[in-house]
Amino acid sequence: MKAHKLISALLLLLPCFPHAAAQAPAPAAARHNLMPVPASVRFNPGRLRVDKTFTVAATGAVDERLRAGVDRAVRRLEGRTVLEVARGLAADPARATLLVEAGAPGKAVPAVDEDESYTLEVGERQAALRAPTVVGALRGLETFLQLLEGDREGFYLPAVSINDRPRFRWRGLMMDIARHFLPMEVVKRNLDAMAAVKLNVFHWHLTEDQGFRIESKKFPRLHQMGSDGNFYTQEQAREVIEYARQRGIRVVPEFDLPGHATAWLVGHPELGSAPGPYTIERKPGIFEPTLDPTREEVYKFLEVFFTEMAALFPDAYMHIGGDENTGKQWDANPKIQEFMKAKGIKDNHALQTYFNQRMLKILQKNGKRMMGWDEIFQPDLPKDVVIHSWRGQKALAEAARRGYDGVLSNGYYIDLIFPTTDHYLNDPLPEGHGLTEAEARHVLGGEATMWAEWVTPETVDSRIWPRTAAIAERLWSPREVRDADDMYRRLAVTSVRLEELGLTHERNQAMMLRRLAGGAYPPALETLASFVEPVKEYRRYQQRPQTMLSPLTGLVDAARPDSAAARGFTRRVGLLLSDAPRFALHFSTLRDTLTAWRDAGPVLEALVDRSPALAEARPLARDLGSAGEIGLEALSYIQQGVAPTAEWRDTRLAALAEVAKPKAALEFPFLPALRELVHAAYERPQLEGTTPAEWRRRVRELANPPKPQPPANH
Amino acid sequence: MKAHKLISALLLLLPCFPHAAAQAPAPAAARHNLMPVPASVRFNPGRLRVDKTFTVAATGAVDERLRAGVDRAVRRLEGRTVLEVARGLAADPARATLLVEAGAPGKAVPAVDEDESYTLEVGERQAALRAPTVVGALRGLETFLQLLEGDREGFYLPAVSINDRPRFRWRGLMMDIARHFLPMEVVKRNLDAMAAVKLNVFHWHLTEDQGFRIESKKFPRLHQMGSDGNFYTQEQAREVIEYARQRGIRVVPEFDLPGHATAWLVGHPELGSAPGPYTIERKPGIFEPTLDPTREEVYKFLEVFFTEMAALFPDAYMHIGGDENTGKQWDANPKIQEFMKAKGIKDNHALQTYFNQRMLKILQKNGKRMMGWDEIFQPDLPKDVVIHSWRGQKALAEAARRGYDGVLSNGYYIDLIFPTTDHYLNDPLPEGHGLTEAEARHVLGGEATMWAEWVTPETVDSRIWPRTAAIAERLWSPREVRDADDMYRRLAVTSVRLEELGLTHERNQAMMLRRLAGGAYPPALETLASFVEPVKEYRRYQQRPQTMLSPLTGLVDAARPDSAAARGFTRRVGLLLSDAPRFALHFSTLRDTLTAWRDAGPVLEALVDRSPALAEARPLARDLGSAGEIGLEALSYIQQGVAPTAEWRDTRLAALAEVAKPKAALEFPFLPALRELVHAAYERPQLEGTTPAEWRRRVRELANPPKPQPPANH
Repeated sequence: MKAHKLISALLLLLPCFPHAAAQAPAPAAARHNLMPVPASVRFNPGRLRVDKTFTVAATGAVDERLRAGVDRAVRRLEGRTVLEVARGLAADPARATLLVEAGAPGKAVPAVDEDESYTLEVGERQAALRAPTVVGALRGLETFLQLLEGDREGFYLPAVSINDRPRFRWRGLMMDIARHFLPMEVVKRNLDAMAAVKLNVFHWHLTEDQGFRIESKKFPRLHQMGSDGNFYTQEQAREVIEYARQRGIRVVPEFDLPGHATAWLVGHPELGSAPGPYTIERKPGIFEPTLDPTREEVYKFLEVFFTEMAALFPDAYMHIGGDENTGKQWDANPKIQEFMKAKGIKDNHALQTYFNQRMLKILQKNGKRMMGWDEIFQPDLPKDVVIHSWRGQKALAEAARRGYDGVLSNGYYIDLIFPTTDHYLNDPLPEGHGLTEAEARHVLGGEATMWAEWVTPETVDSRIWPRTAAIAERLWSPREVRDADDMYRRLAVTSVRLEELGLTHERNQAMMLRRLAGGAYPPALETLASFVEPVKEYRRYQQRPQTMLSPLTGLVDAARPDSAAARGFTRRVGLLLSDAPRFALHFSTLRDTLTAWRDAGPVLEALVDRSPALAEARPLARDLGSAGEIGLEALSYIQQGVAPTAEWRDTRLAALAEVAKPKAALEFPFLPALRELVHAAYERPQLEGTTPAEWRRRVRELANPPKPQPPANH
Repeated sequence: MKAHKLISALLLLLPCFPHAAAQAPAPAAARHNLMPVPASVRFNPGRLRVDKTFTVAATGAVDERLRAGVDRAVRRLEGRTVLEVARGLAADPARATLLVEAGAPGKAVPAVDEDESYTLEVGERQAALRAPTVVGALRGLETFLQLLEGDREGFYLPAVSINDRPRFRWRGLMMDIARHFLPMEVVKRNLDAMAAVKLNVFHWHLTEDQGFRIESKKFPRLHQMGSDGNFYTQEQAREVIEYARQRGIRVVPEFDLPGHATAWLVGHPELGSAPGPYTIERKPGIFEPTLDPTREEVYKFLEVFFTEMAALFPDAYMHIGGDENTGKQWDANPKIQEFMKAKGIKDNHALQTYFNQRMLKILQKNGKRMMGWDEIFQPDLPKDVVIHSWRGQKALAEAARRGYDGVLSNGYYIDLIFPTTDHYLNDPLPEGHGLTEAEARHVLGGEATMWAEWVTPETVDSRIWPRTAAIAERLWSPREVRDADDMYRRLAVTSVRLEELGLTHERNQAMMLRRLAGGAYPPALETLASFVEPVKEYRRYQQRPQTMLSPLTGLVDAARPDSAAARGFTRRVGLLLSDAPRFALHFSTLRDTLTAWRDAGPVLEALVDRSPALAEARPLARDLGSAGEIGLEALSYIQQGVAPTAEWRDTRLAALAEVAKPKAALEFPFLPALRELVHAAYERPQLEGTTPAEWRRRVRELANPPKPQPPANH
């Protein structure tokens, strides 16, 4: 205790650190929970009270879509406030709590050039939402709901002037429902969530090696033989399209060709570049089955099929994939080789370009603009083709310079379990992009991509949300909005609010832990689950191979990306090492956390003994326990101001290196901070006379050697 | 501490109490988690290991329903074990882990006389499930899954010989999806849960004053104008019927007539006994709109309608409601009065009988047996009419004596929020029923009734489950299975296992509390929510009036029936007062609980200040705090063995009487136990020289004066 007091007193003498200053709360008015942050927000004095007298009036273009949108917003308001408010629109605009004024209904089919702007003026008597289109009004209604706050007197909105419009026109979420099928209600609740954060493109990845998921009346063997019975009927597709339209969301279907096409070939092997037969692929990866681009029957088939789909999907764009064709079936097929020779097609890349040219004609005939992944980009493609980039901003800028529209997904691969900030700071048009204004207009926006190797209806929401809300902000808000701490603060609020739409990203973890434990579980399991993250990129399959038929109910499935608990721990370590005035506070919080880790070990081992579904968590339980012990030792050295031996440091770092090896495809994201603690314990006395800032810097460098950038891929 | 030791020592000298003995664990083999308990179970030595080599083979009648049922069971097994096991049926019956042998496919349309029996022999090498029908095999598969346990070596089933068959043929769940509409996925997941606890009748309450929920192609105005757009299409109805059939569940539709019929009359006022117009009813209660039973056009309409519905719903039974007709519209209509006079119909009851006779002919013409609530029972009705009794066992026995089949729902009104035991101990054929065996066969079984005034898709599961699993056991298991403590132990396991089917009864509470709190909440809110229950019977509406359009997102909606936490507290108080050897353990647990209550008060009040959706919880927060204080005082007196004054007792009981007044339609079910503590503190020294048993008895009498039986109704 004495030593602790001493070091506290010492630290009190030191100046405040910049990091600590950054943590100071923003002024009350600016601490809003809006996500995405509007283009312009000015808070004013005063509050608009929301009580059971709440009414909405509408003037201007009052169509069925606006009425339904207002009704949904009011029902959510009711749900949060537990106030029953009037149904329908009020007669008197002057006396309504919220006045909505839309200039026009907006396009019949949601389009990329839809005007989504709006203004929202909240005064003490009324809020006025004005927008050129109903879609803009729908966006503004979401902002209105996000402004809702409470105090002792009840609910209110702060007075505010908002003038808002999106930075990018194309703000999408791609859902791969092919590798694991997702039923209608999962799609619908995710459309609701998209609307809540102002995303406007639902990219529906409908076909893959592992499944063909849309009914074709022309070629029913496609879905009958390629889907295990898990597909959307055309009626359901229309239902999704209408559900999306109601929310101002476009539906861009993707039919991945000529590769990623195994499931097509199960029912129609005659389209393949090899004779077949084919079976639905059950593993993840890149496979050989590819359409034969040299035969006219194939194009006849595709023309009939795409004509059918073009009638079903009203959006102006159609995505044909075009990625990751291995070319092996082409190399092995003498007729294809002959065709190439005869036509002077020099390589597989050129052959795919030939295929794309043919596809383009089919789509153009059906009035559609073609979209495809980077691979389709060829200088001789017409300018109305859209490049969907998994390669990155440079590829996108290059295409833009040549006059091609592009959409960024590199950096938005939410299936790879990277932390939110990685996506948040990834800008389709980063500062210094070097494009002219006209060129930059070709960068339409971006799309989060939810590849579905390792998700089910039970877990998919937790992979998409809340991280995708931060991507939505990147695509809607001004480039300058990039304060990660403030993003995380608002993201926590947004995450809970998304639950009102039926999303399960928060609530399903406890259920999955109960199933793993075989019933009610001790808090130690929650501690473990909250401090682990699934391994990143494509390491999950490498470390814990499964197929599309495996149960996705393990601890790695219950774990969530971007552990908030680990982030909190890391932040606390930073504060301990730099926020002198509150040293004692940070110290005791950290000690509590580390003690919980240490104590969780034995409890978890006892749990595993009777819950074999958790058997793979046994080494993690031990790791958590020893991480807790090491942290407590380091903390104790720091508190006492006494240097441990170099041997202590080295053995502890070696032990942490063992802890850092993923087990059960899970890892502890708090390890860099824990290593900082160990280095800090050792370095503090060695660095006598230096400032805490220097101490912190040295510790950071020691604990976090620079790491290579993760490659983009999908 | 000294006093505590003293009294502990004193209590140690006392003999064990019977109540404490009842808590002793059953022998390991008998402590299974089966619900409902099979007709006969004999555990044997040995275990059948379940690992990734698990396979199922089938012989006998191997149809598509059995294959699908096996597949679902294996997927659930995979989900729990995180083991990937083979798909499809194994070729070699001798080497399969589970051998399923069904004698016959069972009826094409599930029927009331379906043979649901099965035997399950689990040995160390194989489990053999044998059943005369596929339905019996499906029942046995559920038992198989319930036997799954885990230990250090992995998963296993204990060796066991089970010979099982249901006690009653009709084991139903009625879902009122009219007052609040429930979408398809809610219906489906509840069908899955029904199958898991061996229920076999889904009674679909499709029409009400508040909604007409089934598409009629003959009279589309019925659903178009009577449902706010919330109805099932006929295609969806067929999907539900097939989904149920796959699980061996019958679907009995109910079209409530001639009362409870407002929603019919919105689109067809010409059918009414008053001219109309009519609007969809929004309030709960009993309303006047009634079909006119005197006009031939009405019967023509009904004949067309029921002919349409008879073709849609294949079950042999059709429910016409028939309950709660006020008769006021009949009294007020001169033409109806004239008709009655002309036909010699003496009163409204007789007029309804006339209506029923006409309905009967319509149903008979369509090959259906008519079912209706008690009110339809008339001695001159033909014997194939089935009485659905909300009145009770006596009415049912009376009908049985006269040769009528009957189904009990009195005592199974799960919407009224009574504790599980009330339902569990309610027997359709209680001991001493006095019926002959032949008469008793007329008592077909029972149905839990989920009336939907106060439920939404978000909360309905929590009103049905897990309590309905105990009703399922009452209807399936032998009469003698009625140990409430053991039922509650197994119910807790069953509840968690039901979650794997997508039910939300456990997981949605935390989400609803987050919405109420506006984000993450302190444990104090969970404490409050776990110790309150919604008020019982019809008091919710009296105390907190709402309509069918109100948000059901308040604390009363997040609260669940039959608080396990309160039950635990009550049990602990009983043990403290009777389980002398472990006095100290019970004492400290109770002190922790009471301290949590006391400390929750101020935390909750601070939370309410910023979360106005919880405003109505403010008095509950205070009550919980003062209940904690009073309990701690009582505990301290008991510990010290010192008598408080009579004034202390009286003021504390008066304070608890205030706490006992429901607030926000919520009440504290632990109050009787808390009153026991207060009385115990006062009585203990007065009763010097008596045994703890006498002390306990006296305290119980003082704290729990006999209460009147709740009336049955709906």
